[in-house]
Amino acid sequence: MRVPYDEMVREFVRVLTKHGITDEDAALSAKLFADASLEGVYTHGLNRFPKFIDSIKNGSVDVTKRAVLSASFGSLERWDGQQGPGNLNAYRAMERAIELAKEHTVGVVALKNTNHWMRPGNYGHLACDNDCIGILWTNTIPNMPAWGGTEAKLGNNPLVVSIPYEGGTVLVDVAMSMFSYGKLEKYKREGTMCPVDGGFDTKGNMTRDPAEILKTHQVLPIGYWKGSGLSLVLDLIAAMLSGGNTTHEVGSYPYETMLSQTFIAIDLSRFPDREALEAKVDATLKDLQSSTSIQEGVAVHYPGQGMQRTRAESLEKGVLVDPGIWAGVLEA
Amino acid sequence: MRVPYDEMVREFVRVLTKHGITDEDAALSAKLFADASLEGVYTHGLNRFPKFIDSIKNGSVDVTKRAVLSASFGSLERWDGQQGPGNLNAYRAMERAIELAKEHTVGVVALKNTNHWMRPGNYGHLACDNDCIGILWTNTIPNMPAWGGTEAKLGNNPLVVSIPYEGGTVLVDVAMSMFSYGKLEKYKREGTMCPVDGGFDTKGNMTRDPAEILKTHQVLPIGYWKGSGLSLVLDLIAAMLSGGNTTHEVGSYPYETMLSQTFIAIDLSRFPDREALEAKVDATLKDLQSSTSIQEGVAVHYPGQGMQRTRAESLEKGVLVDPGIWAGVLEA
Repeated sequence: MRVPYDEMVREFVRVLTKHGITDEDAALSAKLFADASLEGVYTHGLNRFPKFIDSIKNGSVDVTKRAVLSASFGSLERWDGQQGPGNLNAYRAMERAIELAKEHTVGVVALKNTNHWMRPGNYGHLACDNDCIGILWTNTIPNMPAWGGTEAKLGNNPLVVSIPYEGGTVLVDVAMSMFSYGKLEKYKREGTMCPVDGGFDTKGNMTRDPAEILKTHQVLPIGYWKGSGLSLVLDLIAAMLSGGNTTHEVGSYPYETMLSQTFIAIDLSRFPDREALEAKVDATLKDLQSSTSIQEGVAVHYPGQGMQRTRAESLEKGVLVDPGIWAGVLEA
Repeated sequence: MRVPYDEMVREFVRVLTKHGITDEDAALSAKLFADASLEGVYTHGLNRFPKFIDSIKNGSVDVTKRAVLSASFGSLERWDGQQGPGNLNAYRAMERAIELAKEHTVGVVALKNTNHWMRPGNYGHLACDNDCIGILWTNTIPNMPAWGGTEAKLGNNPLVVSIPYEGGTVLVDVAMSMFSYGKLEKYKREGTMCPVDGGFDTKGNMTRDPAEILKTHQVLPIGYWKGSGLSLVLDLIAAMLSGGNTTHEVGSYPYETMLSQTFIAIDLSRFPDREALEAKVDATLKDLQSSTSIQEGVAVHYPGQGMQRTRAESLEKGVLVDPGIWAGVLEA
């Protein structure tokens, strides 16, 4: 089932304002949710919307609060998210990092006490719309064992890197775990195996079986020991720069909140060779796409490329929705 | 066989000065090579030294050249490595990034036209010695297929992140390929399998067999499609910020040279809660180490932790050397 983008935004606005979000903020929040679905990131678009409304109801998101500046250190600022809506906080943080980048070339906003940022690619796009490279990450609750251990000590700490490109933003959006719990649940529901090993089974062997991994909760970091190390340093940097919680500290709350995030913007517009840089990116991406495919008929793409097709299709035909979830929004 | 650290430095200095490197630069270069072996990174210490001397002889490294400032953009500077020695260029670049961080909180040096930086952990340590977080990466020749493709289009683009910690620096040093070609050669020589899948075999299946991977040259990125994307953006950022070569462009030279690198330093010393930040790191690392081990008797460590034991042992008993390679240095 497909729903026109504008209708989706309108319905989101209606529901959000019912829960005490101002008109202006509701418009932005609704756009961020709808844009996720528009580009095919359904898990963090419509499908996440009911959970976000729940988090307002249970008090973990305080709709009256927004991120505010707490300390300024030149090209880096610390902001306090005050447990406000995670997507609005993240958008503001990226916006401010871009402003700092326009002043200092590099701008960093370190955000503490915030909530789940929903779909981070949106903030990567925001950087690129302002001719900035965007590098941003969040910590999470402990949900992944450190390499060699059995209990969740690390977060999966999603990292986004976005690079402006006229042919369509290069957008890498990767958690430090091989598969999210949501993805494992989906594979299990569909009765399929993970495409590669995703964690350990109850006997301590690596497995593609999502049901086994969901029993042990021992998900694999990307690159095994490498992703374990990367997850750790992303967490420590987010916490140190913001003065906020580490994943270990987030684990002390009854639910995932009071997160730490880092937003880096690097302004490309000031480079005198800006045009030559675009040509460099273009040549690299075209070379990549000229790869001989391992699987016949499946061309090699750059990260973010598929999203553009989905976006165009969604705008033309409407945004794909889960009928049940969409019906729930209409009735909310 | 073990050799006292001071003797190793002395011999390196002797050989380097014979090849036209000034006394002062030879002292630093020798220290950087010796420090790699001291901390157990033998591949990029003594074992790499003969290859470095070869690269002076064949002209790919110009010992008369050093990195120079080419353009300044506030907290970010572009430097030109002029094909000088990669380790001296990288050291200078990190040194300058730290100076910029002391001024702007965040400092970035983008270095172009440089050579292999040998052991990057050294520059991570340099950042931490100055109470900075260090984030640095290099691009390389194309040596890894993009996910879904068969020909090497991406570099393995090693990334280092270092975080100062009183108990011993947190140091993550990871290439974007699961295993380096050097490591695959080593496994093959020793007749062992890779501990996890490292690439594709001649039939197109993923394999742990180093001999098979060395036939196809189809090494796996960390996290499959995820590491493929990360490698791409590390390359593009290094090239765009420095105005230097992309991996694709580096591939047009007869050997690996004219690389692009990024050095980011973030000064922690200016945060009023610096002491509380140290406590956060300490609590996280102790929690990590309290993990129940998957393999009995193998405790969970944080990245960089093992290095400290090796360093202490090497200082006490001498640095482990390959007798043949060491004899070669003595005769050089």
